[in-house]
Amino acid sequence: MIDNYKQIIDSKLYIFCKQQNLHVDQFQEALCYSLLNGGKRLRAILMLSIVELKRPLSEEDYKVALALEMMHAYSLIHDDLPAMDNALLRRNLPTNHIVFGEDLAILAGDGLNTNTFNVISSARLPSDKVVEIIKILSAKAGIYGMVLGQAADILSSINKLKKSDKWLVNFIHKNKTARFLQACCEIGAVLGDFERDIFSKFGLYLGMSYQIIDDYLDVVSDKKTLGKDKKDIDNNTLTYPRVYGMEKSLELANKLKSLAIGTIKKVNGSEKLVELAEYIVKRVN
Amino acid sequence: MIDNYKQIIDSKLYIFCKQQNLHVDQFQEALCYSLLNGGKRLRAILMLSIVELKRPLSEEDYKVALALEMMHAYSLIHDDLPAMDNALLRRNLPTNHIVFGEDLAILAGDGLNTNTFNVISSARLPSDKVVEIIKILSAKAGIYGMVLGQAADILSSINKLKKSDKWLVNFIHKNKTARFLQACCEIGAVLGDFERDIFSKFGLYLGMSYQIIDDYLDVVSDKKTLGKDKKDIDNNTLTYPRVYGMEKSLELANKLKSLAIGTIKKVNGSEKLVELAEYIVKRVN
Repeated sequence: MIDNYKQIIDSKLYIFCKQQNLHVDQFQEALCYSLLNGGKRLRAILMLSIVELKRPLSEEDYKVALALEMMHAYSLIHDDLPAMDNALLRRNLPTNHIVFGEDLAILAGDGLNTNTFNVISSARLPSDKVVEIIKILSAKAGIYGMVLGQAADILSSINKLKKSDKWLVNFIHKNKTARFLQACCEIGAVLGDFERDIFSKFGLYLGMSYQIIDDYLDVVSDKKTLGKDKKDIDNNTLTYPRVYGMEKSLELANKLKSLAIGTIKKVNGSEKLVELAEYIVKRVN
Repeated sequence: MIDNYKQIIDSKLYIFCKQQNLHVDQFQEALCYSLLNGGKRLRAILMLSIVELKRPLSEEDYKVALALEMMHAYSLIHDDLPAMDNALLRRNLPTNHIVFGEDLAILAGDGLNTNTFNVISSARLPSDKVVEIIKILSAKAGIYGMVLGQAADILSSINKLKKSDKWLVNFIHKNKTARFLQACCEIGAVLGDFERDIFSKFGLYLGMSYQIIDDYLDVVSDKKTLGKDKKDIDNNTLTYPRVYGMEKSLELANKLKSLAIGTIKKVNGSEKLVELAEYIVKRVN
Protein backbone atom coordinates (compact mmCIF):
# COMPACT_ATOMS: atom_id res chain seq x y z
CA MET A 1 0.00 0.00 0.00
CA ILE A 2 2.72 2.42 1.06
CA ASP A 3 4.83 1.55 -1.98
CA ASN A 4 1.99 2.36 -4.40
CA TYR A 5 1.57 5.85 -3.02
CA LYS A 6 5.31 6.37 -2.89
CA GLN A 7 5.72 5.51 -6.57
CA ILE A 8 3.05 7.99 -7.61
CA ILE A 9 4.48 10.75 -5.41
CA ASP A 10 8.03 10.12 -6.61
CA SER A 11 6.97 10.26 -10.24
CA LYS A 12 4.99 13.48 -9.72
CA LEU A 13 7.96 15.10 -7.99
CA TYR A 14 10.12 14.01 -10.90
CA ILE A 15 7.71 15.64 -13.34
CA PHE A 16 7.70 18.84 -11.24
CA CYS A 17 11.49 18.98 -11.45
CA LYS A 18 11.52 18.30 -15.19
CA GLN A 19 9.07 21.15 -15.78
CA GLN A 20 11.24 23.77 -14.07
CA ASN A 21 13.45 25.98 -16.17
CA LEU A 22 15.21 28.24 -13.70
CA HIS A 23 18.22 29.18 -15.93
CA VAL A 24 20.61 28.45 -13.06
CA ASP A 25 21.31 24.76 -13.51
CA GLN A 26 23.32 24.14 -10.35
CA PHE A 27 20.58 25.68 -8.22
CA GLN A 28 17.86 23.64 -9.88
CA GLU A 29 19.96 20.50 -9.45
CA ALA A 30 20.47 21.24 -5.76
CA LEU A 31 16.70 21.66 -5.28
CA CYS A 32 15.85 18.48 -7.11
CA TYR A 33 18.67 16.38 -5.66
CA SER A 34 17.04 16.46 -2.26
CA LEU A 35 13.48 16.49 -3.49
CA LEU A 36 13.94 13.33 -5.56
CA ASN A 37 16.33 11.60 -3.21
CA GLY A 38 14.15 8.72 -1.95
CA GLY A 39 12.44 9.13 1.36
CA LYS A 40 9.44 7.30 2.71
CA ARG A 41 7.01 10.06 1.59
CA LEU A 42 5.26 9.49 4.88
CA ARG A 43 3.89 13.02 5.15
CA ALA A 44 2.29 12.94 1.73
CA ILE A 45 0.95 9.42 2.28
CA LEU A 46 -0.59 10.32 5.63
CA MET A 47 -2.44 13.26 4.13
CA LEU A 48 -3.60 11.38 1.03
CA SER A 49 -4.77 8.37 3.05
CA ILE A 50 -7.01 10.62 5.10
CA VAL A 51 -8.56 12.28 2.04
CA GLU A 52 -9.19 8.83 0.57
CA LEU A 53 -11.35 7.89 3.53
CA LYS A 54 -13.92 10.21 1.97
CA ARG A 55 -13.42 10.23 -1.81
CA PRO A 56 -11.04 9.35 -4.67
CA LEU A 57 -7.92 11.53 -4.86
CA SER A 58 -7.70 14.43 -7.32
CA GLU A 59 -4.71 16.02 -9.00
CA GLU A 60 -5.12 18.99 -6.66
CA ASP A 61 -4.81 16.74 -3.58
CA TYR A 62 -1.55 15.45 -5.01
CA LYS A 63 -0.26 19.00 -5.46
CA VAL A 64 -0.72 19.63 -1.75
CA ALA A 65 0.97 16.28 -1.02
CA LEU A 66 3.98 17.28 -3.15
CA ALA A 67 4.16 20.58 -1.29
CA LEU A 68 4.39 18.69 2.03
CA GLU A 69 7.34 16.73 0.65
CA MET A 70 9.00 20.00 -0.43
CA MET A 71 8.66 21.32 3.10
CA HIS A 72 10.14 18.07 4.43
CA ALA A 73 13.04 18.14 1.95
CA TYR A 74 13.91 21.73 2.95
CA SER A 75 13.96 20.78 6.63
CA LEU A 76 16.35 17.88 6.00
CA ILE A 77 18.74 20.00 3.89
CA HIS A 78 18.97 22.63 6.63
CA ASP A 79 19.16 20.08 9.47
CA ASP A 80 22.16 18.47 7.78
CA LEU A 81 24.14 21.74 7.36
CA PRO A 82 27.58 22.05 8.96
CA ALA A 83 26.25 24.66 11.41
CA MET A 84 23.45 22.27 12.44
CA ASP A 85 23.93 18.45 12.54
CA ASN A 86 26.92 18.55 10.19
CA ALA A 87 25.72 15.33 8.52
CA LEU A 88 27.59 13.82 5.60
CA LEU A 89 25.10 11.14 4.65
CA ARG A 90 21.34 11.11 4.10
CA ARG A 91 19.45 8.17 2.60
CA ASN A 92 22.85 6.58 1.86
CA LEU A 93 23.88 9.50 -0.37
CA PRO A 94 26.06 12.55 0.36
CA THR A 95 24.04 15.37 1.90
CA ASN A 96 23.08 18.40 -0.18
CA HIS A 97 25.83 20.69 1.12
CA ILE A 98 28.47 18.03 0.48
CA VAL A 99 27.46 17.85 -3.18
CA PHE A 100 26.53 21.50 -3.90
CA GLY A 101 28.29 23.49 -1.17
CA GLU A 102 26.85 25.14 1.90
CA ASP A 103 25.66 28.28 0.09
CA LEU A 104 23.56 26.48 -2.50
CA ALA A 105 22.27 24.06 0.15
CA ILE A 106 20.98 26.96 2.25
CA LEU A 107 19.33 28.47 -0.82
CA ALA A 108 17.88 25.17 -2.01
CA GLY A 109 16.28 24.77 1.42
CA ASP A 110 15.01 28.36 1.43
CA GLY A 111 13.59 27.92 -2.05
CA LEU A 112 11.79 24.69 -1.16
CA ASN A 113 10.36 26.25 1.99
CA THR A 114 8.89 29.22 0.12
CA ASN A 115 7.83 27.10 -2.85
CA THR A 116 5.75 24.86 -0.62
CA PHE A 117 3.36 27.78 -0.35
CA ASN A 118 3.52 28.50 -4.06
CA VAL A 119 2.44 24.98 -4.92
CA ILE A 120 -0.40 24.99 -2.36
CA SER A 121 -1.67 28.43 -3.36
CA SER A 122 -1.59 27.42 -7.03
CA ALA A 123 -3.78 24.33 -6.49
CA ARG A 124 -7.26 24.67 -7.96
CA LEU A 125 -9.04 24.20 -4.67
CA PRO A 126 -11.64 26.38 -2.93
CA SER A 127 -9.83 29.47 -1.60
CA ASP A 128 -11.01 29.02 1.97
CA LYS A 129 -9.51 25.53 2.03
CA VAL A 130 -6.21 26.78 0.61
CA VAL A 131 -6.03 29.48 3.28
CA GLU A 132 -6.82 26.98 6.03
CA ILE A 133 -4.16 24.56 4.77
CA ILE A 134 -1.52 27.29 4.62
CA LYS A 135 -2.45 28.52 8.08
CA ILE A 136 -2.03 25.04 9.55
CA LEU A 137 1.22 24.23 7.77
CA SER A 138 2.92 27.59 8.26
CA ALA A 139 2.26 27.40 12.02
CA LYS A 140 3.25 23.79 12.61
CA ALA A 141 6.28 23.72 10.28
CA GLY A 142 7.42 27.16 11.41
CA ILE A 143 8.01 29.06 14.62
CA TYR A 144 5.14 27.31 16.41
CA GLY A 145 6.38 23.84 15.51
CA MET A 146 9.24 22.36 13.51
CA VAL A 147 11.66 25.30 13.43
CA LEU A 148 11.04 26.04 17.12
CA GLY A 149 11.69 22.38 17.99
CA GLN A 150 14.92 22.36 16.02
CA ALA A 151 16.06 25.50 17.86
CA ALA A 152 15.24 23.86 21.22
CA ASP A 153 17.08 20.71 20.12
CA ILE A 154 20.24 22.64 19.25
CA LEU A 155 20.18 24.75 22.41
CA SER A 156 19.51 21.73 24.62
CA SER A 157 22.54 19.91 23.26
CA ILE A 158 24.77 22.69 24.57
CA ASN A 159 22.78 22.91 27.83
CA LYS A 160 21.55 26.40 27.08
CA LEU A 161 17.96 25.80 28.19
CA LYS A 162 17.13 25.78 31.87
CA LYS A 163 14.35 23.21 31.81
CA SER A 164 14.05 19.64 33.11
CA ASP A 165 15.16 16.91 30.69
CA LYS A 166 11.71 15.31 30.61
CA TRP A 167 9.96 18.59 29.83
CA LEU A 168 12.55 19.40 27.23
CA VAL A 169 12.68 16.10 25.34
CA ASN A 170 8.89 16.17 25.12
CA PHE A 171 8.91 19.79 23.92
CA ILE A 172 11.57 19.06 21.30
CA HIS A 173 9.90 15.95 19.91
CA LYS A 174 6.47 17.48 19.88
CA ASN A 175 7.64 20.56 18.00
CA LYS A 176 10.46 19.23 15.86
CA THR A 177 8.62 16.18 14.52
CA ALA A 178 5.09 15.67 15.74
CA ARG A 179 3.63 19.07 14.84
CA PHE A 180 4.46 18.69 11.15
CA LEU A 181 2.98 15.17 11.00
CA GLN A 182 -0.03 16.52 12.86
CA ALA A 183 -0.31 19.27 10.24
CA CYS A 184 -0.33 16.65 7.45
CA CYS A 185 -3.24 14.87 9.16
CA GLU A 186 -5.15 18.10 9.74
CA ILE A 187 -4.64 19.09 6.09
CA GLY A 188 -6.01 15.69 5.05
CA ALA A 189 -9.04 16.42 7.22
CA VAL A 190 -9.54 19.84 5.61
CA LEU A 191 -9.35 18.35 2.10
CA GLY A 192 -11.61 15.41 3.04
CA ASP A 193 -14.16 17.64 4.81
CA PHE A 194 -13.73 15.90 8.14
CA GLU A 195 -13.94 17.32 11.64
CA ARG A 196 -10.32 18.09 12.34
CA ASP A 197 -10.11 16.99 15.97
CA ILE A 198 -9.70 13.19 15.63
CA PHE A 199 -7.10 13.51 12.89
CA SER A 200 -5.23 16.16 14.81
CA LYS A 201 -4.91 13.88 17.84
CA PHE A 202 -4.00 10.91 15.65
CA GLY A 203 -1.21 12.95 14.02
CA LEU A 204 0.21 14.17 17.30
CA TYR A 205 0.32 10.70 18.90
CA LEU A 206 1.74 9.21 15.73
CA GLY A 207 4.35 11.94 15.44
CA MET A 208 5.55 11.49 19.01
CA SER A 209 5.75 7.73 18.54
CA TYR A 210 7.63 8.25 15.26
CA GLN A 211 10.32 10.41 16.84
CA ILE A 212 10.85 8.10 19.84
CA ILE A 213 11.38 5.22 17.40
CA ASP A 214 13.78 7.45 15.49
CA ASP A 215 15.81 7.99 18.66
CA TYR A 216 15.69 4.26 19.40
CA LEU A 217 16.88 3.29 15.91
CA ASP A 218 19.76 5.74 16.19
CA VAL A 219 21.05 3.56 19.05
CA VAL A 220 20.30 0.04 17.78
CA SER A 221 20.67 0.31 13.98
CA ASP A 222 23.83 0.64 11.97
CA LYS A 223 24.66 3.57 9.70
CA LYS A 224 23.99 1.61 6.52
CA THR A 225 20.49 0.57 7.55
CA LEU A 226 19.68 4.09 8.72
CA GLY A 227 21.18 5.58 5.56
CA LYS A 228 22.50 8.51 7.56
CA ASP A 229 25.07 9.41 10.16
CA LYS A 230 24.34 8.36 13.72
CA LYS A 231 24.51 11.79 15.20
CA ASP A 232 22.51 11.77 18.43
CA ILE A 233 25.38 10.54 20.59
CA ASP A 234 28.06 12.71 18.93
CA ASN A 235 25.87 15.78 19.15
CA ASN A 236 24.87 15.29 22.77
CA THR A 237 21.27 15.40 21.61
CA LEU A 238 18.54 14.98 24.21
CA THR A 239 16.75 11.74 23.23
CA TYR A 240 14.10 9.52 24.78
CA PRO A 241 16.60 6.64 25.35
CA ARG A 242 18.90 9.08 27.13
CA VAL A 243 16.14 10.44 29.38
CA TYR A 244 13.99 7.32 29.86
CA GLY A 245 16.26 4.38 28.95
CA MET A 246 15.80 1.99 26.01
CA GLU A 247 13.08 -0.26 27.39
CA LYS A 248 10.89 2.52 28.69
CA SER A 249 11.29 4.44 25.40
CA LEU A 250 10.04 1.49 23.35
CA GLU A 251 7.17 1.11 25.79
CA LEU A 252 6.25 4.78 25.40
CA ALA A 253 6.44 4.57 21.59
CA ASN A 254 4.11 1.57 21.63
CA LYS A 255 1.73 3.26 24.00
CA LEU A 256 1.57 6.35 21.78
CA LYS A 257 1.03 4.16 18.74
CA SER A 258 -1.88 2.45 20.52
CA LEU A 259 -3.35 5.83 21.40
CA ALA A 260 -3.05 6.88 17.74
CA ILE A 261 -4.73 3.69 16.53
CA GLY A 262 -7.41 3.90 19.21
CA THR A 263 -8.22 7.43 18.06
CA ILE A 264 -8.45 6.68 14.36
CA LYS A 265 -10.31 3.35 14.67
CA LYS A 266 -13.57 5.25 15.23
CA VAL A 267 -13.39 6.47 11.62
CA ASN A 268 -14.91 4.27 8.89
CA GLY A 269 -12.37 2.62 6.61
CA SER A 270 -9.34 3.60 8.67
CA GLU A 271 -7.52 0.26 8.18
CA LYS A 272 -4.89 1.89 5.95
CA LEU A 273 -4.10 4.46 8.62
CA VAL A 274 -3.82 1.73 11.24
CA GLU A 275 -1.43 -0.07 8.88
CA LEU A 276 0.61 3.15 8.52
CA ALA A 277 0.81 3.56 12.29
CA GLU A 278 1.96 -0.06 12.68
CA TYR A 279 4.57 0.44 9.95
CA ILE A 280 5.98 3.50 11.64
CA VAL A 281 6.73 1.61 14.85
CA LYS A 282 8.03 -1.53 13.11
CA ARG A 283 10.27 0.30 10.62
CA VAL A 284 14.04 -0.15 10.54
CA ASN A 285 15.08 3.27 9.21
CA MET B 1 5.76 60.73 4.81
CA ILE B 2 8.13 57.76 4.84
CA ASP B 3 8.97 58.31 8.51
CA ASN B 4 5.30 58.24 9.52
CA TYR B 5 4.73 54.84 7.94
CA LYS B 6 8.02 53.55 9.31
CA GLN B 7 7.08 54.45 12.88
CA ILE B 8 3.76 52.63 12.65
CA ILE B 9 5.33 49.54 11.08
CA ASP B 10 8.15 49.46 13.63
CA SER B 11 5.71 49.71 16.52
CA LYS B 12 3.48 46.97 15.11
CA LEU B 13 6.48 44.68 14.64
CA TYR B 14 7.48 45.42 18.22
CA ILE B 15 4.00 44.43 19.41
CA PHE B 16 4.15 41.23 17.34
CA CYS B 17 7.42 40.29 19.05
CA LYS B 18 6.10 41.11 22.52
CA GLN B 19 3.07 38.88 21.94
CA GLN B 20 5.14 35.79 21.13
CA ASN B 21 5.81 33.26 23.85
CA LEU B 22 7.88 30.57 22.19
CA HIS B 23 9.46 29.11 25.38
CA VAL B 24 12.89 29.19 23.75
CA ASP B 25 14.14 32.66 24.61
CA GLN B 26 17.32 32.70 22.56
CA PHE B 27 15.41 31.68 19.44
CA GLN B 28 12.74 34.32 19.96
CA GLU B 29 15.46 36.93 20.55
CA ALA B 30 17.23 35.93 17.33
CA LEU B 31 13.97 36.29 15.37
CA CYS B 32 13.15 39.67 16.84
CA TYR B 33 16.68 41.04 16.75
CA SER B 34 16.59 41.18 12.96
CA LEU B 35 12.91 41.95 12.66
CA LEU B 36 13.16 45.03 14.89
CA ASN B 37 16.61 46.10 13.77
CA GLY B 38 15.79 49.32 11.89
CA GLY B 39 15.46 49.11 8.17
CA LYS B 40 13.74 51.48 5.80
CA ARG B 41 10.54 49.36 5.71
CA LEU B 42 10.43 50.14 2.03
CA ARG B 43 8.56 46.97 1.07
CA ALA B 44 5.78 47.54 3.56
CA ILE B 45 5.56 51.24 2.69
CA LEU B 46 5.34 50.54 -1.04
CA MET B 47 2.46 48.13 -0.53
CA LEU B 48 0.59 50.35 1.92
CA SER B 49 0.98 53.46 -0.27
CA ILE B 50 -0.68 51.64 -3.15
CA VAL B 51 -3.63 50.47 -1.04
CA GLU B 52 -4.04 54.05 0.21
CA LEU B 53 -4.57 55.30 -3.32
CA LYS B 54 -7.97 53.63 -3.04
CA ARG B 55 -9.04 53.68 0.61
CA PRO B 56 -7.90 54.17 4.23
CA LEU B 57 -5.66 51.39 5.56
CA SER B 58 -7.08 48.63 7.77
CA GLU B 59 -5.42 46.53 10.45
CA GLU B 60 -5.46 43.60 8.01
CA ASP B 61 -3.48 45.59 5.41
CA TYR B 62 -0.87 46.22 8.08
CA LYS B 63 -0.65 42.48 8.84
CA VAL B 64 0.28 41.82 5.23
CA ALA B 65 2.79 44.69 5.40
CA LEU B 66 4.42 43.17 8.51
CA ALA B 67 4.62 39.82 6.73
CA LEU B 68 6.55 41.47 3.87
CA GLU B 69 9.05 42.83 6.40
CA MET B 70 9.41 39.32 7.91
CA MET B 71 10.24 37.97 4.49
CA HIS B 72 12.78 40.75 4.00
CA ALA B 73 14.36 40.19 7.44
CA TYR B 74 14.76 36.46 6.71
CA SER B 75 16.48 37.20 3.41
CA LEU B 76 18.98 39.54 5.07
CA ILE B 77 19.81 37.07 7.87
CA HIS B 78 20.54 34.33 5.34
CA ASP B 79 22.39 36.66 2.93
CA ASP B 80 24.74 37.66 5.75
CA LEU B 81 25.63 34.06 6.77
CA PRO B 82 29.28 32.97 6.67
CA ALA B 83 28.53 30.60 3.78
CA MET B 84 26.96 33.47 1.84
CA ASP B 85 28.22 37.09 2.11
CA ASN B 86 29.93 36.48 5.47
CA ALA B 87 28.89 39.95 6.64
CA LEU B 88 29.69 41.16 10.13
CA LEU B 89 27.67 44.34 10.11
CA ARG B 90 24.10 45.20 9.10
CA ARG B 91 22.45 48.52 9.87
CA ASN B 92 25.51 49.40 11.97
CA LEU B 93 24.91 46.44 14.29
CA PRO B 94 26.51 42.97 14.37
CA THR B 95 24.72 40.56 12.02
CA ASN B 96 22.39 37.89 13.40
CA HIS B 97 24.88 35.03 13.21
CA ILE B 98 27.54 37.09 14.97
CA VAL B 99 25.20 37.64 17.93
CA PHE B 100 23.33 34.32 18.05
CA GLY B 101 25.54 31.86 16.17
CA GLU B 102 25.15 30.41 12.72
CA ASP B 103 22.70 27.68 13.75
CA LEU B 104 20.17 30.02 15.36
CA ALA B 105 20.59 32.52 12.52
CA ILE B 106 19.68 29.87 9.95
CA LEU B 107 16.65 28.88 12.04
CA ALA B 108 15.58 32.47 12.69
CA GLY B 109 15.62 33.03 8.92
CA ASP B 110 13.73 29.81 8.25
CA GLY B 111 11.16 30.69 10.88
CA LEU B 112 10.60 34.19 9.49
CA ASN B 113 10.25 32.81 5.96
CA THR B 114 7.56 30.31 6.95
CA ASN B 115 5.89 32.74 9.34
CA THR B 116 5.39 35.28 6.57
CA PHE B 117 2.74 32.93 5.22
CA ASN B 118 1.26 32.35 8.66
CA VAL B 119 0.70 36.06 9.16
CA ILE B 120 -0.81 36.53 5.70
CA SER B 121 -3.09 33.47 5.94
CA SER B 122 -4.27 34.62 9.37
CA ALA B 123 -5.33 38.08 8.15
CA ARG B 124 -9.10 38.55 8.08
CA LEU B 125 -9.29 39.25 4.37
CA PRO B 126 -11.36 37.59 1.63
CA SER B 127 -9.86 34.13 1.02
CA ASP B 128 -9.38 34.65 -2.69
CA LYS B 129 -7.27 37.75 -2.02
CA VAL B 130 -5.17 35.88 0.55
CA VAL B 131 -4.52 33.08 -1.94
CA GLU B 132 -3.59 35.59 -4.65
CA ILE B 133 -1.20 37.44 -2.32
CA ILE B 134 0.50 34.21 -1.25
CA LYS B 135 0.80 33.06 -4.85
CA ILE B 136 2.51 36.31 -5.86
CA LEU B 137 4.86 36.48 -2.90
CA SER B 138 5.86 32.80 -2.83
CA ALA B 139 6.81 32.97 -6.52
CA LYS B 140 8.70 36.26 -6.49
CA ALA B 141 10.47 35.79 -3.15
CA GLY B 142 11.22 32.13 -3.88
CA ILE B 143 12.62 30.01 -6.68
CA TYR B 144 11.14 32.27 -9.38
CA GLY B 145 12.63 35.41 -7.89
CA MET B 146 14.70 36.34 -4.86
CA VAL B 147 16.20 32.96 -3.94
CA LEU B 148 16.97 32.21 -7.59
CA GLY B 149 18.67 35.61 -7.97
CA GLN B 150 20.76 35.03 -4.87
CA ALA B 151 21.86 31.65 -6.25
CA ALA B 152 22.82 33.26 -9.57
CA ASP B 153 24.69 36.00 -7.68
CA ILE B 154 26.75 33.48 -5.71
CA LEU B 155 27.50 31.30 -8.71
CA SER B 156 28.43 34.29 -10.87
CA SER B 157 30.97 35.49 -8.31
CA ILE B 158 32.89 32.24 -8.75
CA ASN B 159 32.37 32.28 -12.51
CA LYS B 160 30.23 29.18 -12.50
CA LEU B 161 27.62 30.48 -14.93
CA LYS B 162 28.35 30.52 -18.62
CA LYS B 163 26.40 33.63 -19.57
CA SER B 164 27.42 37.11 -20.71
CA ASP B 165 28.01 39.65 -17.94
CA LYS B 166 25.25 41.93 -19.18
CA TRP B 167 22.67 39.15 -19.31
CA LEU B 168 23.76 37.92 -15.92
CA VAL B 169 23.84 41.20 -14.02
CA ASN B 170 20.35 41.94 -15.33
CA PHE B 171 19.11 38.45 -14.38
CA ILE B 172 20.59 38.72 -10.89
CA HIS B 173 19.22 42.18 -10.14
CA LYS B 174 15.81 41.41 -11.56
CA ASN B 175 15.44 38.25 -9.53
CA LYS B 176 17.38 39.04 -6.37
CA THR B 177 15.88 42.46 -5.74
CA ALA B 178 13.31 43.66 -8.25
CA ARG B 179 10.93 40.69 -8.17
CA PHE B 180 10.26 41.05 -4.45
CA LEU B 181 9.64 44.80 -4.74
CA GLN B 182 7.41 44.05 -7.71
CA ALA B 183 5.53 41.53 -5.55
CA CYS B 184 4.96 44.22 -2.89
CA CYS B 185 3.43 46.50 -5.53
CA GLU B 186 1.26 43.72 -6.98
CA ILE B 187 0.05 42.82 -3.49
CA GLY B 188 -0.87 46.46 -2.92
CA ALA B 189 -2.85 46.31 -6.15
CA VAL B 190 -4.68 43.14 -5.04
CA LEU B 191 -5.59 44.72 -1.69
CA GLY B 192 -6.61 48.01 -3.30
CA ASP B 193 -8.64 46.31 -6.07
CA PHE B 194 -6.56 47.80 -8.87
CA GLU B 195 -5.64 46.30 -12.21
CA ARG B 196 -2.30 44.74 -11.43
CA ASP B 197 -0.42 45.62 -14.61
CA ILE B 198 0.61 49.23 -13.97
CA PHE B 199 1.77 48.49 -10.44
CA SER B 200 3.64 45.42 -11.56
CA LYS B 201 5.61 47.45 -14.12
CA PHE B 202 6.20 50.25 -11.60
CA GLY B 203 7.59 47.72 -9.09
CA LEU B 204 9.91 46.10 -11.58
CA TYR B 205 11.39 49.41 -12.84
CA LEU B 206 11.71 50.70 -9.30
CA GLY B 207 13.32 47.46 -8.10
CA MET B 208 15.92 47.51 -10.88
CA SER B 209 16.71 51.16 -10.19
CA TYR B 210 16.96 50.40 -6.47
CA GLN B 211 19.53 47.64 -6.94
CA ILE B 212 21.69 49.64 -9.34
CA ILE B 213 21.80 52.45 -6.77
CA ASP B 214 22.69 49.85 -4.15
CA ASP B 215 25.66 48.77 -6.27
CA TYR B 216 26.65 52.40 -6.82
CA LEU B 217 26.51 53.24 -3.11
CA ASP B 218 28.66 50.22 -2.32
CA VAL B 219 31.42 51.94 -4.31
CA VAL B 220 31.00 55.59 -3.30
CA SER B 221 29.75 55.42 0.31
CA ASP B 222 31.71 54.54 3.41
CA LYS B 223 30.90 51.60 5.68
CA LYS B 224 29.44 53.79 8.42
CA THR B 225 26.95 55.50 6.13
CA LEU B 226 25.96 52.19 4.56
CA GLY B 227 25.70 50.54 7.99
CA LYS B 228 27.03 47.31 6.54
CA ASP B 229 30.19 45.77 5.16
CA LYS B 230 31.20 46.78 1.65
CA LYS B 231 31.23 43.34 0.21
CA ASP B 232 30.73 43.64 -3.54
CA ILE B 233 34.41 44.13 -4.32
CA ASP B 234 35.68 41.53 -1.83
CA ASN B 235 33.16 38.98 -3.05
CA ASN B 236 33.83 39.51 -6.73
CA THR B 237 30.13 40.23 -7.13
CA LEU B 238 28.82 41.09 -10.56
CA THR B 239 27.54 44.67 -10.23
CA TYR B 240 26.27 47.34 -12.62
CA PRO B 241 29.33 49.59 -12.01
CA ARG B 242 31.59 46.63 -12.83
CA VAL B 243 29.74 45.81 -16.06
CA TYR B 244 28.69 49.31 -17.21
CA GLY B 245 30.98 51.71 -15.31
CA MET B 246 29.89 54.27 -12.69
CA GLU B 247 28.49 56.99 -14.95
CA LYS B 248 26.47 54.67 -17.16
CA SER B 249 25.11 52.87 -14.07
CA LEU B 250 23.81 56.09 -12.56
CA GLU B 251 22.30 56.99 -15.92
CA LEU B 252 20.54 53.62 -16.11
CA ALA B 253 19.24 53.95 -12.55
CA ASN B 254 17.80 57.38 -13.37
CA LYS B 255 16.27 56.12 -16.58
CA LEU B 256 14.58 53.25 -14.76
CA LYS B 257 13.35 55.63 -12.09
CA SER B 258 11.84 57.84 -14.80
CA LEU B 259 10.16 54.82 -16.35
CA ALA B 260 8.75 53.89 -12.94
CA ILE B 261 7.44 57.40 -12.35
CA GLY B 262 6.07 57.66 -15.88
CA THR B 263 4.12 54.44 -15.33
CA ILE B 264 2.60 55.39 -12.00
CA LYS B 265 1.78 59.01 -12.87
CA LYS B 266 -1.30 57.83 -14.77
CA VAL B 267 -2.86 56.76 -11.46
CA ASN B 268 -4.83 59.34 -9.47
CA GLY B 269 -3.13 60.53 -6.29
CA SER B 270 0.17 58.82 -7.00
CA GLU B 271 2.31 61.72 -5.69
CA LYS B 272 3.43 59.66 -2.68
CA LEU B 273 4.66 56.85 -4.90
CA VAL B 274 6.54 59.36 -7.06
CA GLU B 275 8.12 60.72 -3.87
CA LEU B 276 9.10 57.17 -2.88
CA ALA B 277 10.70 56.54 -6.25
CA GLU B 278 12.66 59.83 -5.99
CA TYR B 279 13.77 58.90 -2.47
CA ILE B 280 15.07 55.54 -3.61
CA VAL B 281 17.41 57.10 -6.14
CA LYS B 282 18.52 59.95 -3.87
CA ARG B 283 19.14 57.82 -0.78
CA VAL B 284 22.57 57.47 0.83
CA ASN B 285 22.27 53.97 2.34
